[in-house]
Amino acid sequence: MVATTEFATIKKDVLDKISPNTQEKNKLQNTAELLKNNVEKTAHNMKLNGVTAKLVGSAARNTWISGTHDLDIFIMFPLTTTREELKQWGLGIAKKIAENSEYFEERYAEHPYINMKYNGFDVDIVPCFKVQSASDIRSAVDRTPFHNEYIKTNIKGLENEVLVLKQFMKGIKVYGSELKNMGFSGYLTELLVIHYGSFENIIKSACKWEPGKYIDIKSHGNVIHEEPLIVIDPTDPKRNVAAALSLDKFCIFISKCRQFIEKPDLDFFFPQFINSVIDIKKTKEYLISRKTVFLAIVFEKPDLVDDILYPQLYKMQHSVNLLLKNYDFEVINSKCWSGKETGLLLELISDNLPVLKKHHGPPVWVCDHAEDFRKKYENMPDTFSFYIENGIYIAEIPRQYSNVYNLIKEKITTCALGKNISISVKKGFRLYKNMDIFNIYDSDLTDLLKVWPDKL
Amino acid sequence: MVATTEFATIKKDVLDKISPNTQEKNKLQNTAELLKNNVEKTAHNMKLNGVTAKLVGSAARNTWISGTHDLDIFIMFPLTTTREELKQWGLGIAKKIAENSEYFEERYAEHPYINMKYNGFDVDIVPCFKVQSASDIRSAVDRTPFHNEYIKTNIKGLENEVLVLKQFMKGIKVYGSELKNMGFSGYLTELLVIHYGSFENIIKSACKWEPGKYIDIKSHGNVIHEEPLIVIDPTDPKRNVAAALSLDKFCIFISKCRQFIEKPDLDFFFPQFINSVIDIKKTKEYLISRKTVFLAIVFEKPDLVDDILYPQLYKMQHSVNLLLKNYDFEVINSKCWSGKETGLLLELISDNLPVLKKHHGPPVWVCDHAEDFRKKYENMPDTFSFYIENGIYIAEIPRQYSNVYNLIKEKITTCALGKNISISVKKGFRLYKNMDIFNIYDSDLTDLLKVWPDKL
Repeated sequence: MVATTEFATIKKDVLDKISPNTQEKNKLQNTAELLKNNVEKTAHNMKLNGVTAKLVGSAARNTWISGTHDLDIFIMFPLTTTREELKQWGLGIAKKIAENSEYFEERYAEHPYINMKYNGFDVDIVPCFKVQSASDIRSAVDRTPFHNEYIKTNIKGLENEVLVLKQFMKGIKVYGSELKNMGFSGYLTELLVIHYGSFENIIKSACKWEPGKYIDIKSHGNVIHEEPLIVIDPTDPKRNVAAALSLDKFCIFISKCRQFIEKPDLDFFFPQFINSVIDIKKTKEYLISRKTVFLAIVFEKPDLVDDILYPQLYKMQHSVNLLLKNYDFEVINSKCWSGKETGLLLELISDNLPVLKKHHGPPVWVCDHAEDFRKKYENMPDTFSFYIENGIYIAEIPRQYSNVYNLIKEKITTCALGKNISISVKKGFRLYKNMDIFNIYDSDLTDLLKVWPDKL
Repeated sequence: MVATTEFATIKKDVLDKISPNTQEKNKLQNTAELLKNNVEKTAHNMKLNGVTAKLVGSAARNTWISGTHDLDIFIMFPLTTTREELKQWGLGIAKKIAENSEYFEERYAEHPYINMKYNGFDVDIVPCFKVQSASDIRSAVDRTPFHNEYIKTNIKGLENEVLVLKQFMKGIKVYGSELKNMGFSGYLTELLVIHYGSFENIIKSACKWEPGKYIDIKSHGNVIHEEPLIVIDPTDPKRNVAAALSLDKFCIFISKCRQFIEKPDLDFFFPQFINSVIDIKKTKEYLISRKTVFLAIVFEKPDLVDDILYPQLYKMQHSVNLLLKNYDFEVINSKCWSGKETGLLLELISDNLPVLKKHHGPPVWVCDHAEDFRKKYENMPDTFSFYIENGIYIAEIPRQYSNVYNLIKEKITTCALGKNISISVKKGFRLYKNMDIFNIYDSDLTDLLKVWPDKL
């Protein structure tokens, strides 16, 4: 077990690297104030009454890491506003603000919002309803101001613990609750700190976590959850804040906590990315040496944000794995990716199987079923052979697909691929076999291959 | 359901072909009498008192098929004889008789006996003890005279039913209880006829047989048996006459009875052997078209009778299948054979596998086991990769054998091969891959390949 002083030293070293300095803090504070004032002034000029602006997220709670320049400004409309008005007026205000930005675009969650680059910051300007309590929300974003209030009230004095925990999670690649990552969200890390009181306590406790781990700070949870980690939202007794966390990210966190306790090291927080120094030639040699079969399915990327695209990619990965398994092709690893190109990469034991397969019938003594089976297969023209083995009728019948490429070509569109990927795949796709995958020039794919199939 | 007249017609046709005629019967009768007299005279000349000769087996019960010229002459010694005397005197008498034979040899069951070719007959002369009841037997052969008496007393009038049943079983290849075949014995067919009363009744009943089918004519069975068919010996309540019958021969009989009832045909009794007309070129083309991998292991045949050799071959087949399965090579069919050459033929999905395999560890949250696993594999120099998948630690470790030939070369002698085959294989063996198996010039193997993997 690691000594307390060793923990303290490492925490100090981490904080030295990631705490924003006064200048950085002031710049963020001033920019946020300016934007809030601009929002309220613009609303006033548009003759909208009761509209206020609020800074939410880590910037508002002093739990942001130096160098991450994200600002979330919420435009809060009174409840008398209709959904249509909120959309129209909210975008109107946001676009007015964005006129002074370096770049901006409209984005979509449940409602449209504006994302812009402004004074070196990545700013989201999000319209929402100013509801009385978190149980009255009209849209998912309405919840955020409540989270903000809860954390601001309870995190005081523990901000550095959040910073250290976030950096640890970034280092071990479990931070970020976007649907691409399915890791820990910022709000979740803050709640863990409030619950456990310190970074050390979280690390020590997580070593013994099991799926179904249940944390309910306000002891008000009133719904059964099935996810690996359940952290009940202090502002909503029905909601699991960790609902998006995948089993594997949960387990990686547990595993890394144990390793950190065993041998604390700054590397957990700031891993050395060896990826970039592994050259492609070595990667290729290594992949060939595995004596497996590689297969990439590449298709046109649907025009979607990652939070819509990745669930479809994961769905495709799952369905294609299942398809291959159903036709006896053993997939040992698979990954989807989306960079310059978008696709699914599969690693198989083999791309070819015998042209026949043994179809096991009922035991001979199960009279009616056995007779049905015998009559169906014994003299079927394409039955290779018909015999009894261990008391069971066996018909050797033609295998529908003895080659995996034909299987994919003919059957992939029958898989559950997700709406947009399905459309894209139906338009066409390319198949790459074995080391031809290196002809797909995409550094995101190359990064996957450099640590294939994965590295803890 | 088949009409009674149709059954009767077929039975008549079969009997016309297989019933011995008067001349054949007389010749058998005369030869048997001559040999019995010679045995008793020779014993008398050797001053052995109380030694009698007895004709047993199908020849004695009128249940033999025309053309099968087997005679079993038992030399019955009084109980005052010792084992050593029985062996010495028995062989002495038998060899004296054999002096007039065309050819003879000493064979071994529990005791030695003489087999000879005599006047066109295949004669066994077997010494045994003349015990009072079947429960007092000193050696397995002592039981035979009791079987003989039981059948002779009970089969009267049913001999033709036995002939038809035996021919049916020969035609569908389930007749013969030698350990190579593991089918129905002559005595077993006779007991079935006594129990069911007719060939028709057996066929009809067998359609509904299930493993564990229990027949006890004298209702005196007193032991639990696990075999697929249990027919309690009327002369020994502990013994299952069908103990040597394999599950597959039992099931083939059931299946063929159903097919016969559905469409009675003389072909069941006298199948047309199409084997000999399939040419080797076509066989080879067919085997190649299966896109599987063939592999023959050929070794020097141990000098053993079939009843000792075949159990060892089957044991080898089972062990080698298990060895390959344990190393992830999927065997889809296998057969052993012994003709000019002796060996095991295997058909596989593939002869090569990736050089690595996924070794599944415990779930990450099973704390102590998970840590042991991680510490053992994560940094092992030959671990390909270490990661978490579905909450479980995965270590990609080198596969010990990625090539099946190396596996067999290095590991076959660790298999349970049976005493004599083990010695033979340790001396050396040859491996034949794919169509090289046709370089093993052995018509027994070719016959196997012509109907590969099997035909009901």
